[in-house]
Amino acid sequence: MKHFIGDRDRIVQQAISGILASSHGRLTRLDGYPEIKVLLRAGWDGSKVSVISGGGSGHEPAHAGFVGEGMLTAAVCGDIFASPSVDAVLSAIIATTGPSGCLLIVKNYTGDRLNFGLAATQARALGYKVEVVVVGDDVATSATKQPRGVAGTLFVHKIAGYLASQGETLTTVAKVAGDVAASIMTIGMAIETCSVPGRGKEQRLAADEAELGLGIHGEPGVQRLKFASVEALVDTAAVQLSNKLSTSSARHALLVNNLGGATPLEMSIVMDALTKTPLFQKIDYVVGPAPLMTALDMKGFSLSLLPLDDQVLPALLAPCEGAWPAPSRAGSPVLTPMPKLPAANWAHSSNPAAEALVRQACAVFIENEDYLNALDAKVGDGDTGSTFATAARGVLGRFDGLPFGDVAALLAAISQILSRTMGGSSGILLAILLSAASKSSSDGHGPVRALRDGLLEMQRFGGAQKGDRTMIDALSPALDIFVAGGNLEDAAKAARKGADSTREMGYATAGRSSYLAEGDLLGNVDPGAEAAARLFERLVERSTPERG
Amino acid sequence: MKHFIGDRDRIVQQAISGILASSHGRLTRLDGYPEIKVLLRAGWDGSKVSVISGGGSGHEPAHAGFVGEGMLTAAVCGDIFASPSVDAVLSAIIATTGPSGCLLIVKNYTGDRLNFGLAATQARALGYKVEVVVVGDDVATSATKQPRGVAGTLFVHKIAGYLASQGETLTTVAKVAGDVAASIMTIGMAIETCSVPGRGKEQRLAADEAELGLGIHGEPGVQRLKFASVEALVDTAAVQLSNKLSTSSARHALLVNNLGGATPLEMSIVMDALTKTPLFQKIDYVVGPAPLMTALDMKGFSLSLLPLDDQVLPALLAPCEGAWPAPSRAGSPVLTPMPKLPAANWAHSSNPAAEALVRQACAVFIENEDYLNALDAKVGDGDTGSTFATAARGVLGRFDGLPFGDVAALLAAISQILSRTMGGSSGILLAILLSAASKSSSDGHGPVRALRDGLLEMQRFGGAQKGDRTMIDALSPALDIFVAGGNLEDAAKAARKGADSTREMGYATAGRSSYLAEGDLLGNVDPGAEAAARLFERLVERSTPERG
Repeated sequence: MKHFIGDRDRIVQQAISGILASSHGRLTRLDGYPEIKVLLRAGWDGSKVSVISGGGSGHEPAHAGFVGEGMLTAAVCGDIFASPSVDAVLSAIIATTGPSGCLLIVKNYTGDRLNFGLAATQARALGYKVEVVVVGDDVATSATKQPRGVAGTLFVHKIAGYLASQGETLTTVAKVAGDVAASIMTIGMAIETCSVPGRGKEQRLAADEAELGLGIHGEPGVQRLKFASVEALVDTAAVQLSNKLSTSSARHALLVNNLGGATPLEMSIVMDALTKTPLFQKIDYVVGPAPLMTALDMKGFSLSLLPLDDQVLPALLAPCEGAWPAPSRAGSPVLTPMPKLPAANWAHSSNPAAEALVRQACAVFIENEDYLNALDAKVGDGDTGSTFATAARGVLGRFDGLPFGDVAALLAAISQILSRTMGGSSGILLAILLSAASKSSSDGHGPVRALRDGLLEMQRFGGAQKGDRTMIDALSPALDIFVAGGNLEDAAKAARKGADSTREMGYATAGRSSYLAEGDLLGNVDPGAEAAARLFERLVERSTPERG
Repeated sequence: MKHFIGDRDRIVQQAISGILASSHGRLTRLDGYPEIKVLLRAGWDGSKVSVISGGGSGHEPAHAGFVGEGMLTAAVCGDIFASPSVDAVLSAIIATTGPSGCLLIVKNYTGDRLNFGLAATQARALGYKVEVVVVGDDVATSATKQPRGVAGTLFVHKIAGYLASQGETLTTVAKVAGDVAASIMTIGMAIETCSVPGRGKEQRLAADEAELGLGIHGEPGVQRLKFASVEALVDTAAVQLSNKLSTSSARHALLVNNLGGATPLEMSIVMDALTKTPLFQKIDYVVGPAPLMTALDMKGFSLSLLPLDDQVLPALLAPCEGAWPAPSRAGSPVLTPMPKLPAANWAHSSNPAAEALVRQACAVFIENEDYLNALDAKVGDGDTGSTFATAARGVLGRFDGLPFGDVAALLAAISQILSRTMGGSSGILLAILLSAASKSSSDGHGPVRALRDGLLEMQRFGGAQKGDRTMIDALSPALDIFVAGGNLEDAAKAARKGADSTREMGYATAGRSSYLAEGDLLGNVDPGAEAAARLFERLVERSTPERG
């Protein structure tokens, strides 16, 4: 596994510098590199309770990403998965703590507990008011004396941060934070472990295995599971929390945390699966899904529950700066009725001339199926003839219902048939031409202007212009003749000349042949242009039988 | 590569349902599964210009995550890396478009261009006012006729979305969106390709290779590079943009996009590296780094540039709903001076009794180094003796400078020496004990109360209680004797009894032996408790030489 890292000894320093560069004016850091890696709010005046957290790095956005108004005052960053030093924590305390005091929020790992603990003790000896809340929310380890602190810690940050921002006393902030810490529960689930920069990835899990209750540093889980379906995994995780719910707390917030390596698409699927668990019935608010307390690139998620009461809820919902996503209310999805699409049914109307024209056009494409396929085999994938013939058969199949008496409606109808029966880009391109022509026609323009409007629209979305070896090389010159007042016979000659000119085009920048190398095309006619030329030639032939 | 997916045919449907579940009341979807996968704003009344985008899925949060006030009105989602159908786009248009009309923002891929294009044409034929902006911002492909649309498209969403939310006309919104689309530039860089659910990951890049100018569906890049350092990669990418900058536009916004698989830590390092490129001198605002237009789990980033002017800037900066991160100003990081930490220098003062006590304590630990190591070898990692002895030598090394005349200062000084010289948890634990005792002493409490306060603080952060096979099993009973008014001799007996009692403890839930299995410990004394007991015994011995 490759990593975007530079100097291995300066990973966290460089990352903090990057965070500073993208939060200019909002965050600052203590000038204490390399030992002291402390990020703090710019312009903090120490008039309210300072809320500090931190720990090993590799859990981003935790903790640096949560520094901001309404959440953390400072984050003390250790190296990857390693606790920061006592001096780093003490520096953060001294730098941010005024007469209102300071709350340290510590995830329950020995190193963090001891280093934050000693710093708190030292700071108190220096005269600072410091309280410490240790968070151990991981239900996978709750049978032990020291349950780990994981993603639920963010609930404590948010609620303590809000209370502090409201000017509450340290006593109140610490009391509520302690109560919240005691009430939250988290469980993790992963299908791939994490890769620490500079170390290989531990391939602990087989291709069909997942792990329940693993830690955010890759600590092995409490249970290994067969990875059957996302629904089963999510349900297994949710049940772990459901089993521990006290009956008294009816409503909860659920934090859905991406452990780092799952895509947003997958996390949305996890979220969908969650809505089908019994646990979701007890959820009022959802935070995430988002990467919040990650384990580098671990492919997994964790679920954290916070029981809600009147004190906690406004603190949870209040806006704040940083990476904390606004909670959304849980509820059944609301659907919007489908709008009525134009039906593929038309009121038949007669117009013998139009009927004859359409029949002739269809006949041309069906008759030339093999010929056009053969041409396309030299410059494309050999199916142009079939594509056109299929479309023609589609039109003939709906022939008796077509609105021949209304040009605009007829063009729209054929456009719709082509878009649904003609494969590849050609069907959509011709459908665009005919649909735009229909619109132009219904706006009152005559057929020449309508076809020209259609051609322009097709060129716009198709991206090909004259000279790109497409049907445009035949269509465009023919339409130019009509625009100049010329007749069908002249138009057909122009189309033929245009089609033949594609033999001289040794390079295509758009259309079916754009992937072929220069020179491979020379001498071969473009099958789309040939189809258009043959259509015009047939129309001339049929409209002037006396000359034949 | 494993994926959190369920039914492979319903990946996008399930993901959209998950998005709905975590944006309740804010988003809705058209009731058109499985063909029509359209997410739209709940409560949208169609009174302003509707701004619609979309395309293949797998680029999340694009496009669904950007639906919200001030950005997109609706997102039309195709399957993974596949364009949505014409009917899906048309449904989105009809469902959201009122008299103000609708702008379609389309990334420049043939499928999207044709399907959005035909839908636009059909909608116009139905009487809707529809404009289309096609975005082709990828400078890697800008020499071709059809440069790809990539992450810079989000600038178009943001600016068009803002103008629409301000009630601007479709003409204005489309004009500005078109100008923005023409002005933006993006380049991508990756070190790992993406893995599409259900397909294997293409292992195109060797362990030391990176790719410049690759597409967001894993299309191969225009150049393969040796992956030397993150700084070199970032500089190479930045130069691609710098080379195309017009001299007239002095100021730009830079969007730093995570292509999916880089961790936030790595993206911050990329951001830091960016600040060292000449390009950064022309940047006024930074958007991200964040996953914005991803390519599933591709490990890479892209950089997008937007020239700024008076019309674009307020539109860029205005708050909006959804996944769009607030731009931050670019600028040099602001550092905060390090606070003064308590110096490890003390004013020496004399107190012969205290000096003798400290010397005796140090002697006990140094004399028992090997013995305690041997005890620890049975229940831990065999270094307890050395840890204590090293600490004792550390104290003796600073002996002449210690403030023996001031108990509180002396305890604080020794605490500081221990925290810096004594490895492992023990040093920090004893430092906490002594530091808290110092604070208690300076608060006016006598030595017994001070030591008890210290012990409680140590227990709190260390997590061990009596019965956990730690030094507490000796220290705590001894202090209880003092608290009850007993003398040193009785305290030493209690400490010995406590230390010996650890032989009977077959299981440890905290402390050095907590990883050992039940029963492995029976019969062995805890070396920390033994050290404490020996300390008390030595103090008795020295204080009562007449009995010896």
